[in-house]
Amino acid sequence: MQTLNVDLGDRSYPIYIGEDLLSQAELLRQHIHGHQVLVISNETVAPIYLESIRRSLGDLHYSELILPDGEQYKSLEVLGKIYDRLLEENHNRTTTLVALGGGVVGDMTGFAAASYQRGVNFIQIPTTLLSQVDSSVGGKTGVNHPLGKNMIGAFHQPQCVIADTQTLSTLPPRELSAGVAEVIKYGLISDASFYRWLKGNVDGLLACDGDVLSEVIRRSCENKAHVVASDEREAGVRAILNFGHTFGHAIETAQGYGAWLHGEAVAAGMMLATDLSSRLGWLTVGDVNDVRQLLQQSRLPVQPPTMSCDQFLSLMARDKKVLDGNLRLVLLKSVGEAIVTSDVTTQQIKATLMAAGVQS
Amino acid sequence: MQTLNVDLGDRSYPIYIGEDLLSQAELLRQHIHGHQVLVISNETVAPIYLESIRRSLGDLHYSELILPDGEQYKSLEVLGKIYDRLLEENHNRTTTLVALGGGVVGDMTGFAAASYQRGVNFIQIPTTLLSQVDSSVGGKTGVNHPLGKNMIGAFHQPQCVIADTQTLSTLPPRELSAGVAEVIKYGLISDASFYRWLKGNVDGLLACDGDVLSEVIRRSCENKAHVVASDEREAGVRAILNFGHTFGHAIETAQGYGAWLHGEAVAAGMMLATDLSSRLGWLTVGDVNDVRQLLQQSRLPVQPPTMSCDQFLSLMARDKKVLDGNLRLVLLKSVGEAIVTSDVTTQQIKATLMAAGVQS
Repeated sequence: MQTLNVDLGDRSYPIYIGEDLLSQAELLRQHIHGHQVLVISNETVAPIYLESIRRSLGDLHYSELILPDGEQYKSLEVLGKIYDRLLEENHNRTTTLVALGGGVVGDMTGFAAASYQRGVNFIQIPTTLLSQVDSSVGGKTGVNHPLGKNMIGAFHQPQCVIADTQTLSTLPPRELSAGVAEVIKYGLISDASFYRWLKGNVDGLLACDGDVLSEVIRRSCENKAHVVASDEREAGVRAILNFGHTFGHAIETAQGYGAWLHGEAVAAGMMLATDLSSRLGWLTVGDVNDVRQLLQQSRLPVQPPTMSCDQFLSLMARDKKVLDGNLRLVLLKSVGEAIVTSDVTTQQIKATLMAAGVQS
Repeated sequence: MQTLNVDLGDRSYPIYIGEDLLSQAELLRQHIHGHQVLVISNETVAPIYLESIRRSLGDLHYSELILPDGEQYKSLEVLGKIYDRLLEENHNRTTTLVALGGGVVGDMTGFAAASYQRGVNFIQIPTTLLSQVDSSVGGKTGVNHPLGKNMIGAFHQPQCVIADTQTLSTLPPRELSAGVAEVIKYGLISDASFYRWLKGNVDGLLACDGDVLSEVIRRSCENKAHVVASDEREAGVRAILNFGHTFGHAIETAQGYGAWLHGEAVAAGMMLATDLSSRLGWLTVGDVNDVRQLLQQSRLPVQPPTMSCDQFLSLMARDKKVLDGNLRLVLLKSVGEAIVTSDVTTQQIKATLMAAGVQS
């Protein structure tokens, strides 16, 4: 087992990474400080992994809430069901919420924990590669609104994260690939040597090789933790974590949540942002082809779905990075170095979109 | 005008206190940093004071949302309407929410600001005595749940608070008195000299004398700021601000929100807590009579409504100060000095309740 400490002063916490961690009761138990626990999971994950959690909790007073599975349930309405349960069972401020599942369960449980009685403890047990390398670090929690993704939420740090690589063995291949998109992102924005290492290890990654997975999760979380530690509240540099996401969110919103997986939309979005970076003269054509090849090898889409330029541009105008009407994009200065810039013309964005087959 | 600075490091902010501050556009303008503003008010306050705010905002891009008036609208459902409006109008992270109204508008607007895009700026313009002396300081925001008051929320500090004493001239006398309950509380829990000063000035206060009001608001906010600064996240000493509230919340919940005003329930609750403190030998019978007289002079109830002891005890068990099943109460060691204690028996609480006419 590897332990990575996310350093955020008095909100610091450990991420445990390794095989079969769910069977180690003490990992979970040592981070539960009160006498009440609510385990929140979904109907896909619960039947497989909830039993391990039950064994770990043993004699503690705990209860379980199983939510429907899917991005469309990451809503204020479902959040309300978490509050209902907490209040019906008289949970107090010392309660601990345990999120067992992917990003949807983690984000919603985290926001419920951030806002129930103005803040209670929570523990993340992410069971998808995407949530292990993404939601594990950064404290972002929240729900979607019909008019935009993650528009309602809070920053709230967990007590600990338990990333058991074993849980990835039951993950559908498409979801595993979606997680790889975010892994490639860390290489591209801040770690060229990790990017190069990935090119040689993507097959082992897709085959769920335990050692490769542990290494991938550790280096991804390290990269993210490094960015987050210098900008916890997302005032500046943290925005580079949104590489590929401005285009990606537009794709997700246009297609309706759930049609494309988040990681798939991000992959196509990274391809667009990479192309745009080369148009600005920062990357070579070879760099662009390299990125395309790695994404394809990871079984990820490298082209956007059928959408118009206008649809892209109007959806991108809703991005959270927009400041007083100015669109800001995360682009690559080189492989391993991202910047945030508003110095891109609509014409340049359109050129990239049309080169990718988007209608004018 | 008096300016009180609430010292919370990089979340510090000023409270402006005085007459006719709403006509001073610059006070408000200097705290709006982006180009978007949403003013949130209610149907009682908006017709009287919204025009002043419109004049202050002048050429800024702003819009208005008028909510129904009343504690029963401090709900997740009404909060959803604030999110809807923000998204329909594409408000981004640099937007500023302005709360114009009493505690309901302030608490809901504050929570919307805390959670919209994980946190945007907001400005409080409280128009009731209660909100001027209470919600102005401390950053507590939130909404009610059918099973408990303020159960969903966040800590979120405003950019500034503008407490215009002129707005109290249109406040119904019953609501003014409800605010006085919290003012008396500050004297009782932490400022004996302020308590004595109040005994000589309560008539001027009820008559809305401008100088008395300014002094009352400043000293109340100072007292609260002092407590909050030493315990922003309510881990310890801050709980003394809940003097009278554990009994008070039980009364409010039993009666249904809105039947008793919050301050009225707190007044009856403080009377119970004062009586209980004397039963523990910390206050004299003279002290208790003194408190009763000041509350009566302030036109506040000093007896609970028709409820049973069991009803009180089961509702009090839901209090946010309950830790792992132990009820903790705020009581007075002496006039001007409160403590939090779990060292009270159910028998002692029942004795106090029954002395106040509550059925066994």
